[in-house]
This record gives sequence, C-alpha cells and structure tokens, in this order.
Amino acid sequence: VTERVGVAQIRATAGMRPGTEIGIGDDAAVLALGERSLACHDILIEGVHFRRETTSLEAIGRKAVAVNLSDIAAMGGVPRAMLVGLTIPEHDFGADDLAALYAGIEGAAAAHEVTIAGGDTTSGPVLALGVTMLGALPPGCPPLTRGGARPGDLLCVTGPLGAAAAGLMLLEGAADPDRVADARTLIDAHVAPEARLVEGRALAMYGAHAGLDISDGLALDASRLAAESGLGAVIDLDAIPIAPGVVEVARAVGVDADVLAATGGEDYELLAAIPPGRVAPIARRLPRSLTPVGRLRTGAGIELHRGGRPVSVPSLGWERP
Amino acid sequence: VTERVGVAQIRATAGMRPGTEIGIGDDAAVLALGERSLACHDILIEGVHFRRETTSLEAIGRKAVAVNLSDIAAMGGVPRAMLVGLTIPEHDFGADDLAALYAGIEGAAAAHEVTIAGGDTTSGPVLALGVTMLGALPPGCPPLTRGGARPGDLLCVTGPLGAAAAGLMLLEGAADPDRVADARTLIDAHVAPEARLVEGRALAMYGAHAGLDISDGLALDASRLAAESGLGAVIDLDAIPIAPGVVEVARAVGVDADVLAATGGEDYELLAAIPPGRVAPIARRLPRSLTPVGRLRTGAGIELHRGGRPVSVPSLGWERP
Repeated sequence: VTERVGVAQIRATAGMRPGTEIGIGDDAAVLALGERSLACHDILIEGVHFRRETTSLEAIGRKAVAVNLSDIAAMGGVPRAMLVGLTIPEHDFGADDLAALYAGIEGAAAAHEVTIAGGDTTSGPVLALGVTMLGALPPGCPPLTRGGARPGDLLCVTGPLGAAAAGLMLLEGAADPDRVADARTLIDAHVAPEARLVEGRALAMYGAHAGLDISDGLALDASRLAAESGLGAVIDLDAIPIAPGVVEVARAVGVDADVLAATGGEDYELLAAIPPGRVAPIARRLPRSLTPVGRLRTGAGIELHRGGRPVSVPSLGWERP
Repeated sequence: VTERVGVAQIRATAGMRPGTEIGIGDDAAVLALGERSLACHDILIEGVHFRRETTSLEAIGRKAVAVNLSDIAAMGGVPRAMLVGLTIPEHDFGADDLAALYAGIEGAAAAHEVTIAGGDTTSGPVLALGVTMLGALPPGCPPLTRGGARPGDLLCVTGPLGAAAAGLMLLEGAADPDRVADARTLIDAHVAPEARLVEGRALAMYGAHAGLDISDGLALDASRLAAESGLGAVIDLDAIPIAPGVVEVARAVGVDADVLAATGGEDYELLAAIPPGRVAPIARRLPRSLTPVGRLRTGAGIELHRGGRPVSVPSLGWERP
C-alpha cells in the first residue's frame, strides 16, 4: 500500500468544503479559516486505543475523526479541514481494509462538512491514525479554554456519563453483553462517540468560563480544568447523570456505577465551568441536557463527594499511555 | 512515558512565537495565521524513514520538523506553528531519549520561530513522529502550487542534488565513508536537511509558475509537477548540479552520478517551473544557486536526456512505502 494508493483513494472521495482553497495533492493545503483558527492532533493506535478484533475499520476511522472533532467542540469552534496521517500495517491489510477505513474517515468528515485537505500515508508494524483537525472560531466568539474558571462556578456536563467505559468492558468481555439490555448502545458509545459541537459553541458563546471534553474521565478532566484555572474542585457523585445500562455493567464487574461514571473515559461529553446564574440560560440553548455535577473552589486538587462526604477512588480516570 | 511527561516536557521548552494565541495544553491551539493559512503533515517512522542505529534521536527530531518546513517552503509560505504527534516505543526508550528527541524538535522549531502549539503522545511498537506544520502565505503572495506550469517553462533547482542519497548509502554501509572525502557533508545532507524557505518565498513572489520540494527524487517529483500541470517534461542529466562527493559514492556503488542525482530522494531542494525570462531575475533574489535542469512541454510523461538523447533509468525515484 503506497502513498499513491492512499492519496488517490482519498482524492477520489474528498470533497472540497468551505474553508479550503487548495486541498489534497499539493505540498500543503491552502485554507481560509478566518481571523482565529483552531488546530489539534490526536492519535489512535492499534493495541493502545483500539483492537481490530473488536472494532470495525470503518468505526476506527470514524472515531479517529470524532475524537478530534471533540477537541474543536471543546474550544467552541467549527471544524473545517483535516489532515490524515495513516500508518498501514505491513502485513494483513488489503485494499478492502483501506477502503473500509477511508469510508469511516470520509463519512465522519462529510457529516461535519470537513475537507480532507492532506496528510501522509506510510507503512508500519501496526495500524495508527494521527488526525489533525483544523477549525475556525465564529467571529466575536471567545475560545472556551481550560483556564478561565472562577471560584463558585458550577461544573456541568452535557450528557449522561459512563456509557463508553461500560461499553469497553462489554467489548473486552469483562461483562456479558447478552445479560445487559442496553449493551448495543453502550458499545456504540465507546466505538462511535459523537462530538458535542453544538453544545461547545453555545457554551463558548453564552458565558461558560471554561470547558474541555471528557476524554479520560470526568474526575481526571475536572482536575485538569481546575488546575489550569488555579483552583480546586468538588464533584458530587450523587449528581452525576448515569447513562442507561451502566448500573448493570458496573454491578457485573463489581464497581460502583457512580464511580464508573465519574472516572470512566471516552464519553466525549463536554465539561464546563459556568457561573450559577448562567446555567439555566445556556441549558435552554442546548439540544441536550446540561447537568451540574460539582463546583470550583479556591485551593487545589479534586474531591469526590457522596452523601455530602468525601470518598476516595482508586483512580481519577484513564492516564493515557 | 505518559502523555503528562510529554506535555510537561514540551511545555517547559515551547516558546510562544508569532501567530499563536493559545499554545500547548488546551483542547486545541488558537492561531492567528492571516487570511490564508497553509497546513501539511508528514510522518517519519522507525524502520521506514530512519533507523535509530544510524541516526541520533536529536537528528530524527530535527528532520521530522525539517521535512514539514520543506512543504511550507514549497508553497512559498512562512511556518508559524506545529503539532507534534509522537509514538514512543514501549520498551527501550528512556527519559534521556525523550529529552534528546525533543531537543531536536524544539531546536528546529526555535530556529524558524515556530511554536509547538500542541499534539499528542502515545506508546507503540516503534518510534514514530507525525508532525503537522501550519504556516501563513505572505499577504499578496500567491501559493506556489504544483499545477501552474506552462509549456516552455524551465525546470530549475535551488541547489546541487544527490547528496542525501549518497549520504544514505554511506550510512547504510553501501560505500565506505573513510574513502570519501566529503562523507560527513553527504551524511549530514541525509540526516539534517534544511528547508529552502527563503527560496520558496522568492519563487512564489517573483513569478515561478509552479513548484514543489524534491523529497523523492528530481525525476519523480518533476513527473508529478508535470502531471499536475497537464504537461510532460524533459530533464537534461548533463545540466544537473551534482553535490560534492556524490561522484565518488556513485562510483563505489556502481551507478552513474548523474542518475543518482536525478533519482535520489530527500535532497529537499525546491524544483520550480519558471518562464525563461524570469529565471535570471529570480536567481538574483536567491541566496543560493538556481539551475535550469529541464523544461516542460505539451504531452505527458517524463524523459531523461544525456548528450541530447533519451536514456532510461531503473526507477524515477523513491516510491514511499
């Protein structure tokens, strides 16, 4: 599988969407992203972030795009163009496999009007996708950073948590999917996350002080937001909205459902620090729920509370390898 | 080696340079790149593009930046910010190794006033660097694309060729460095290429019709430029400037020096299509030589000529795996 095959295949499917003047095939893409642009890069690599035994290549392609879209969402931006860095396994990876991978990548790009504007393809020992997403900030909209929270801000999440972590447990065989009614939905939450782009723009535009996407677990990501803002945080386990089916999986594997929801990774909901008076007005602009789950305070570090008292957990979330 | 180590290490060294409003550490970087920005992504992976046995980690880091700078140069742009996607070997890669790699990356970034504005670090079976370079087009300057050449344009190169290919032969033991006077210079050409940024801007600004960087060999890259322009091309082997020492290495391995210079990869000089009347005016603006080595013509395909007659070569250049 040479670069020429890769580029030819991408070219055949890559539409030119708004923001791209010169797309794939030249030395660099030429983009018109407005006054302030956004750029992020996330890698998915076989054996660390996914296994081909449990996840289809199309889903892997979609997810590599989705996790980067989520980072644009977490800044309040609009995705415009992306560069795809592909490492294709030297063995055991045919033209059909490549086509399935591209179908996922291009499908996710098309769904969000993102141009595949370039990239690189090489061979290597395992499948790896390094996606760079480029976006724009709407004119007049401040970026939603991690560092702007103030003491007293409420920590709010844009949807229920724990589904992706429970789905991974089902995929990995830690619990039996046949005994969980919502198994398919949970597995989809892990395999096919959706970036909260509408939510991110509303949070940035209507007064959230800070925000990020929950990739490694609510508690861990909340601790990052707090640290970047020079503050501490409290998470109220009782307040966390728990996705359907998570309780069953948590019981099967012997963990508390609220802890699973608080520390499981890859939900890709947004976590925002919002002054109390702005929560209801922002919630009215969102297509989905906005739930307060904690608050910022002076000091440092993060505490999880249950029934009003601090509880300790083995880990705050997923530390990326 | 966790992401936290990686980010902390990059943060400790990453300067905030012009064009970056929010750099590393948030969900995405916020950049101000002007009306039209440039974006490219190139991967270097162990076993395909380099071997740690022959190349220092600092040099590998520098080169991963340089090959991307070269793509910005080839569009006539100014590099501004980059995202670094690192895959760190699971075994046999310590904190000292990571520091050496970063020293190379950050050194190359600093030398060109490029901000390391983000990225991702993961573990994997082999070392891999996926660098995204973001740049700006100077106001009023058209991008130097591959597709703008016209029949009669001269194909010109910004410096002597063949050094990087000869250097790789020395590194790989195909020829004995102790018997080549310029061995160190040739190896450096392979290990530490320099992007022709000044040359690229002058070519774009002062009337070149098309251009690209010679990454895979003059003949192969010329054929790409010609194809993108809907034309054919002739390369005159007798006209190619051959880097010092290439003749000795070519003799040692039993190939023609002019063929090695015409088909060897990774010189990262620029190849431009220039109307004959513009060659001298552009050459006066360049700090280095500008040498006509062929011309564009109607039709398709590429011919190599020696002594005015077509010659055939086994391969036009390096087809990337």
